[in-house]
Amino acid sequence: MKMGVLGSGMAAQALSARLAELGHDVVIGTPDAEELKGWQSSNQKVMIGSFAETAAHGEMVFNATNGAASLNALRLAGVENLAGKILVDVANPLDFSNGFPPSLTVFGTDSLAEQIQRAFPSTKVVKTLNTVTPRVMTHPLEVANGDHHVFISANDMDAKTQVTELLRSFGWIHIFDLGDLSTARGTEAYLLLWVRLYGTMNTSMINMKIMK
Amino acid sequence: MKMGVLGSGMAAQALSARLAELGHDVVIGTPDAEELKGWQSSNQKVMIGSFAETAAHGEMVFNATNGAASLNALRLAGVENLAGKILVDVANPLDFSNGFPPSLTVFGTDSLAEQIQRAFPSTKVVKTLNTVTPRVMTHPLEVANGDHHVFISANDMDAKTQVTELLRSFGWIHIFDLGDLSTARGTEAYLLLWVRLYGTMNTSMINMKIMK
Repeated sequence: MKMGVLGSGMAAQALSARLAELGHDVVIGTPDAEELKGWQSSNQKVMIGSFAETAAHGEMVFNATNGAASLNALRLAGVENLAGKILVDVANPLDFSNGFPPSLTVFGTDSLAEQIQRAFPSTKVVKTLNTVTPRVMTHPLEVANGDHHVFISANDMDAKTQVTELLRSFGWIHIFDLGDLSTARGTEAYLLLWVRLYGTMNTSMINMKIMK
Repeated sequence: MKMGVLGSGMAAQALSARLAELGHDVVIGTPDAEELKGWQSSNQKVMIGSFAETAAHGEMVFNATNGAASLNALRLAGVENLAGKILVDVANPLDFSNGFPPSLTVFGTDSLAEQIQRAFPSTKVVKTLNTVTPRVMTHPLEVANGDHHVFISANDMDAKTQVTELLRSFGWIHIFDLGDLSTARGTEAYLLLWVRLYGTMNTSMINMKIMK
């Protein structure tokens, strides 16, 4: 499948490499191609494009940009290049303006995922993977042999089904359908607990399992 | 031990009953004693007091009041009645002003626990149990045989140790020391995910386990 991954950070790199490894045709998108040249030398199956080229290439597109800058990045990607497509939003609206630990730029009665959905109404936004570090996103079996949960939130059921299948191809076993896109308020807020777990455990190779 | 439980809702009732069952000398505090008379008829070991009487009675005091009203309730309990004591804060600053699901009245760069600590500087505030429903607070073995985590946040190490022992007496096996009281920002924010889990799973007898 043709995949576009917007972003140049650890999440974008991890997702692009994993998608290429699984046989997808991947373009990673950044306004500054130079910063990815070194990474690409060991990931030669992944092409580098602008935000707009990457979005145009993808049949499915990933938002792995910095959450506080995602809306601007997606506007550069272009409404027309994202129309009718699934946008997998893995970003978190972390606000580091007061240093570490971060707060969030949007919270409680709204979420980054919903902001994106409102700005791109003809795109099918699916929120997932934002509750784990990039390596766990793409290699969930490396934490507790995969015995933990990833959440998925979306308004479009067919989009949710397609992304669920993709998550299974990454190795995810427990995929928790949390409901419509407003439930991303919950998984984005969880980041404020995640950063404290990370701070205490001194590893980002962690996740949670829902018990009942 | 002499225990004071501030509040009259499900959490206050569950904590009071459990503490009395474990042999503690418990007063439950409410401005309106009438509303607890029916409950007390089947919990006769628990005495009813005003907020101030309850705080004065307790060697350890629990804040199980409505989070949005906790600061006012604690002021009625009295700075002098809480001075030098451990205050176990199990409340969440849920904001239902826009209906369900709730937002939070304080978030990100501050927390209810820290607001309370600032208002009562000579009290040792310990945040815990706020990530689970009252029945799970007091009977953790009823979810997955206790195979899940409760968090504890406090600035005072001795207070944290004493509350950890109390949690063990409730049946808690996995008690996660998250750090100082500012880490309550994480567990309070988690409530926004919890309400979505509750909404999807149709039971409140749930919790999370941290996996690595």
